[in-house]
Amino acid sequence: MVSEMNKACLLYGAGDARFENIPTPSLKDSPRDVLIRIAYTGVCGSDVHFWVHGGINEMIRPGFPVTLGHEASGVVAAIGSAVTTLKVGDRVAIEPGFPCRYCSFCLAGKYNLCPEMAFAASPGPGPVVHGTLATFFRLPSDFCYQIPDHLGLDEGAIFEPLAVAIHCLFLSKLKPGQEVLVLGAGPVGLLTCAVAREFGAGRVTVVDVNNERLRFAAEELKVSTHRFDAAISVEKNAEVLVAEKGLREGADIVIEATGVASCVQLGIELIKKGGSYVQVGLGKKIVEFPLVVMSEKEITLRGCFRYGPGDFALASRLVGRGKIPLKAFVSKVFPFHQAPDAWEAARKGQGVKFLIQVDGSQA
Amino acid sequence: MVSEMNKACLLYGAGDARFENIPTPSLKDSPRDVLIRIAYTGVCGSDVHFWVHGGINEMIRPGFPVTLGHEASGVVAAIGSAVTTLKVGDRVAIEPGFPCRYCSFCLAGKYNLCPEMAFAASPGPGPVVHGTLATFFRLPSDFCYQIPDHLGLDEGAIFEPLAVAIHCLFLSKLKPGQEVLVLGAGPVGLLTCAVAREFGAGRVTVVDVNNERLRFAAEELKVSTHRFDAAISVEKNAEVLVAEKGLREGADIVIEATGVASCVQLGIELIKKGGSYVQVGLGKKIVEFPLVVMSEKEITLRGCFRYGPGDFALASRLVGRGKIPLKAFVSKVFPFHQAPDAWEAARKGQGVKFLIQVDGSQA
Amino acid sequence: MVSEMNKACLLYGAGDARFENIPTPSLKDSPRDVLIRIAYTGVCGSDVHFWVHGGINEMIRPGFPVTLGHEASGVVAAIGSAVTTLKVGDRVAIEPGFPCRYCSFCLAGKYNLCPEMAFAASPGPGPVVHGTLATFFRLPSDFCYQIPDHLGLDEGAIFEPLAVAIHCLFLSKLKPGQEVLVLGAGPVGLLTCAVAREFGAGRVTVVDVNNERLRFAAEELKVSTHRFDAAISVEKNAEVLVAEKGLREGADIVIEATGVASCVQLGIELIKKGGSYVQVGLGKKIVEFPLVVMSEKEITLRGCFRYGPGDFALASRLVGRGKIPLKAFVSKVFPFHQAPDAWEAARKGQGVKFLIQVDGSQA
Amino acid sequence: MVSEMNKACLLYGAGDARFENIPTPSLKDSPRDVLIRIAYTGVCGSDVHFWVHGGINEMIRPGFPVTLGHEASGVVAAIGSAVTTLKVGDRVAIEPGFPCRYCSFCLAGKYNLCPEMAFAASPGPGPVVHGTLATFFRLPSDFCYQIPDHLGLDEGAIFEPLAVAIHCLFLSKLKPGQEVLVLGAGPVGLLTCAVAREFGAGRVTVVDVNNERLRFAAEELKVSTHRFDAAISVEKNAEVLVAEKGLREGADIVIEATGVASCVQLGIELIKKGGSYVQVGLGKKIVEFPLVVMSEKEITLRGCFRYGPGDFALASRLVGRGKIPLKAFVSKVFPFHQAPDAWEAARKGQGVKFLIQVDGSQA
Repeated sequence: MVSEMNKACLLYGAGDARFENIPTPSLKDSPRDVLIRIAYTGVCGSDVHFWVHGGINEMIRPGFPVTLGHEASGVVAAIGSAVTTLKVGDRVAIEPGFPCRYCSFCLAGKYNLCPEMAFAASPGPGPVVHGTLATFFRLPSDFCYQIPDHLGLDEGAIFEPLAVAIHCLFLSKLKPGQEVLVLGAGPVGLLTCAVAREFGAGRVTVVDVNNERLRFAAEELKVSTHRFDAAISVEKNAEVLVAEKGLREGADIVIEATGVASCVQLGIELIKKGGSYVQVGLGKKIVEFPLVVMSEKEITLRGCFRYGPGDFALASRLVGRGKIPLKAFVSKVFPFHQAPDAWEAARKGQGVKFLIQVDGSQA
Repeated sequence: MVSEMNKACLLYGAGDARFENIPTPSLKDSPRDVLIRIAYTGVCGSDVHFWVHGGINEMIRPGFPVTLGHEASGVVAAIGSAVTTLKVGDRVAIEPGFPCRYCSFCLAGKYNLCPEMAFAASPGPGPVVHGTLATFFRLPSDFCYQIPDHLGLDEGAIFEPLAVAIHCLFLSKLKPGQEVLVLGAGPVGLLTCAVAREFGAGRVTVVDVNNERLRFAAEELKVSTHRFDAAISVEKNAEVLVAEKGLREGADIVIEATGVASCVQLGIELIKKGGSYVQVGLGKKIVEFPLVVMSEKEITLRGCFRYGPGDFALASRLVGRGKIPLKAFVSKVFPFHQAPDAWEAARKGQGVKFLIQVDGSQA
Repeated sequence: MVSEMNKACLLYGAGDARFENIPTPSLKDSPRDVLIRIAYTGVCGSDVHFWVHGGINEMIRPGFPVTLGHEASGVVAAIGSAVTTLKVGDRVAIEPGFPCRYCSFCLAGKYNLCPEMAFAASPGPGPVVHGTLATFFRLPSDFCYQIPDHLGLDEGAIFEPLAVAIHCLFLSKLKPGQEVLVLGAGPVGLLTCAVAREFGAGRVTVVDVNNERLRFAAEELKVSTHRFDAAISVEKNAEVLVAEKGLREGADIVIEATGVASCVQLGIELIKKGGSYVQVGLGKKIVEFPLVVMSEKEITLRGCFRYGPGDFALASRLVGRGKIPLKAFVSKVFPFHQAPDAWEAARKGQGVKFLIQVDGSQA
Repeated sequence: MVSEMNKACLLYGAGDARFENIPTPSLKDSPRDVLIRIAYTGVCGSDVHFWVHGGINEMIRPGFPVTLGHEASGVVAAIGSAVTTLKVGDRVAIEPGFPCRYCSFCLAGKYNLCPEMAFAASPGPGPVVHGTLATFFRLPSDFCYQIPDHLGLDEGAIFEPLAVAIHCLFLSKLKPGQEVLVLGAGPVGLLTCAVAREFGAGRVTVVDVNNERLRFAAEELKVSTHRFDAAISVEKNAEVLVAEKGLREGADIVIEATGVASCVQLGIELIKKGGSYVQVGLGKKIVEFPLVVMSEKEITLRGCFRYGPGDFALASRLVGRGKIPLKAFVSKVFPFHQAPDAWEAARKGQGVKFLIQVDGSQA
């Protein structure tokens, strides 16, 4: 039994975060669960959105306070009575959304679409689900993934966005050797570049307006880059990109990681006939979309939502190969009590990924 | 050798159609081709567009005059020296677009995306390709499909839009028993309803603003119908449809056959999580599109362009079963010299499908 | 709380069945479960095998006595505290295998491959799992499927082999219009014929040595039939079948429902290049197999094991359409205390499907 | 016009090869074809079979003499009037089988199954098709693939077996990170190991009896290896392999590259439930096969026959990455007039791949 206090970073509304003790989750009636002492939690755009706006869309404020955070790593502190695959002390990355395992989506292998999903750091609708910015976090043992020995717990906090990138690439149905175009060089866009390489892609080109992020892509990920010029039209941008990259036939695969209309349009413009496009970026609810071109080129578009069966497990195996430079993604680590500073830094769009070190003793 | 005159209906520009003799195609250097004496040609929206506007988008007027028509049936009048599967007198439906058979799309089984496709009734860009509103039409023998004995040549002219509907349903990846929602009860929308039934769909519901077409769907195709109310918002329409059809979880499959933004939005609103949406209707080039919902529901969208390998052959087999009421789709038959009247009738949105009887002796 | 006695038909070994009271399962610690009062249980080949041989392969006798039976229907007698989708009195068909919902197979939507599957009427290895030849049977509510109003509880006992047939057809990746060849006209073979029709297949031909079963197929299912001649070679049989059915190019889909080497070979001989073959029949562990032809024709073979997500639900929807003559499949109904007679009748290969009426008051 | 003599190595029957001049193919009536001056031709098992037995199965001796050889590279010597993508002097690898482009297989993107395929070095049935052991070889321009600048013409002769390996891996539906087991370390088996790595596979293990080939796999391809012990049973071999590699759950993907029954059985034994197995090795026509296990594990088996659309193009792109050590595969190069010595060397099972240098001036 874990008797320590469970200190959490609770959001009470926009700009109002408080550090308080909340009950430590018990494993008594949860034989398949484990208790994790959280080491690191990464900052995601949704955290920043909660911090700034106090909610996302319909989810505004129904169930505050809520513990934020869902990109996390930690060490197993206790295990339920039926757990056989983990032991106290194991270092794990956390898959932070828990499906019901009973609905038709769960049974069919699409648990990310489960209508009863309990996802960490959700103030609602539905019951409040607390996140990982706390000393302890309870979850089913099969949603913990061992961190390979040669990697740090800080790198384990990157598994979550990496699982998004993996899910995205699976949805793209990428075949080895294919040309990939990634729109947007934020953390997920950059990780899709890295994953595309691991999946055997041919050339991978990432497009962004931010020179610093493009430099990161070129230097750390060794992929081709292109700067989007916001001063000229989408068509002009497309022409320049085609000319510079010899992309006359278009890219086999487009990963849209911004959600911005101009990038969506650029993606449809630059995709090959019969190509595959995945929408992983979330932006405005309604965007102007080139529907006729989608039909004439007979493109397949797929929405991408979080991750599903096998995605985290593959994240663990891919990082084990050592070719994805997870360490480089960590721009800065903030101590637990400075969590709001981490959100503010992310809000300013600096760096790639910020981590909050929840437990300073597990460096 | 066929020595008869080849009388064609040539479009010289918007509103300017002339009946003239053009050269009868020769089979001398085309050993795999056959010559068809055209019986019927159906009127397609693109014909009407050419007749009214003198072109479609970029294709405006580069290569007039052009023989219109591409939904056609006829009788084999002559065969090339290498043809073994057809004989003079065979009654056939025509697949009117001829791919190069050499590019990577053709080799990969996606000939509808062939960049060198020679599609009937195309004034350009590229070389002018004449259509089927002429006494004779030449094509490769493998693009002719036998009309089952119990069907008329008029019904053979419906194979082409039926092949579009088949292609559309294949793209949808419909599984037997699934709930299908079709937006738009024009000829292609109605034919997708019929094909969905043949593919083993569960309930099929078609939505339109036009009561007459919905009545056709209910009576001739025995599918569920719903009238879209243009006076209220898309959201309100969605609510009504959900309430009346018990569609709380959404449809597994949405076929969008209008290209109109409100219908596109309705489709995304009413599709099930993880569902499959096919865009077969062509409308405005840019429409307002609910991109975030597409991602959150992890929907797959596919553009649909014409038809590919096996689609016409399946059309022939499906009509052979006798459950698709092709005859009912024929609203009126116009004699050859009244072709412009047929286009005008179609322009007014009356009826379902109009045919032009090119050769009156083949009734 | 259900207080009635739970009378079960227990097998103690080959030829040794006894009717005894066993504990009635409790729902106290199973909030998601329901208790079913069993109406009918169908006889499966595996029941006969247990009755005759006292086990199957390695599973011989490790955990007797075991309640036999797994093809069952019944009425809801009690529901767990968390059940919302069923109520006492509902008439349901039963999916009789309960996966763990936690392993990688379950999460990936392949629960039929779950290594911890608790399948009804399994004496082991692993813990003994009792079957449906008992007054009461407990199972998760989501593994019960409503029987449409116009169908009897006897027909509900056919859902289980129907789900096998559906699973088999999904594995075959049948496309509408394709030619299907079914080898073996036992219950599963016959049901695959019916399901193939519902899935939009073109011609369906079933092959067997038994004229009575072929007559059933022709009369009740309206499919094409062919008698396998055991007096001549597989090659000769193939030649005759090709000649009589015009099957020169081969069948697109072969469903092998016997497990007998000569039928397997006939299937590979008669399948089209690039075709799809599903092995649903179980026979000798090792058979002589034409491996080179499989490669040269680039055939896809799939093993078929029970059923997975959605299969029972589709069974319920398909029978609701009213085109599968479930009633005709029931050759004879035996009262509960004559269960061994039902097994003996099945052993003799008479009829199609025998049912055991567990509760005579629910006719 | 090419006026040079066309010297060919003609097989007249088992053990009877003669060097004679045959007519140089003309491009006059073949505007899309090119003429290649052959540089190298690799030795394939089928060549050896022809040399030793005078034919393969039914194909024995119907159309001798025939020019052998189909794994070839060369330099463009002349181009047809319609060729735009190649020029005289281009260094190319050759795809040596020419489909009809008109049948339903060709149209559907499965040209390797074309019943009218004209495959190099086929003495029949059907018309004799000469092979690449000649000064000149004519083929459609789209079946030539540029050899990257940094590779030699000798390496270009390896594209053909590499395309087989690529086709095989595509058929396997390998997902990145999956465990792959390759049975047989002949040229195709070894190349599948290399391709699996390029496709993002997890661990790749190759099994063979030949220590020298396993050493090649370990040193040149850096894959895991295991020696099959012919002195013990398949089951024992399986146990050892499971123990040594921790393969308790089985491999996701099995590539069988021997055609030998014991290896086939080992593959089915060691494959994971739901796994994917590809048969690329050709051996005895009938083998003893564990059919019940295939069903119970619900395995997918696919036959693999040559290569199809995109396979050679991907071969060209993959070798361009520089990670497949093509050079190492070339065990020895024989001069043209010693072609029979090359076949004899291959017959003895030495080395990996032997090349015949048809044109010594193109080193």
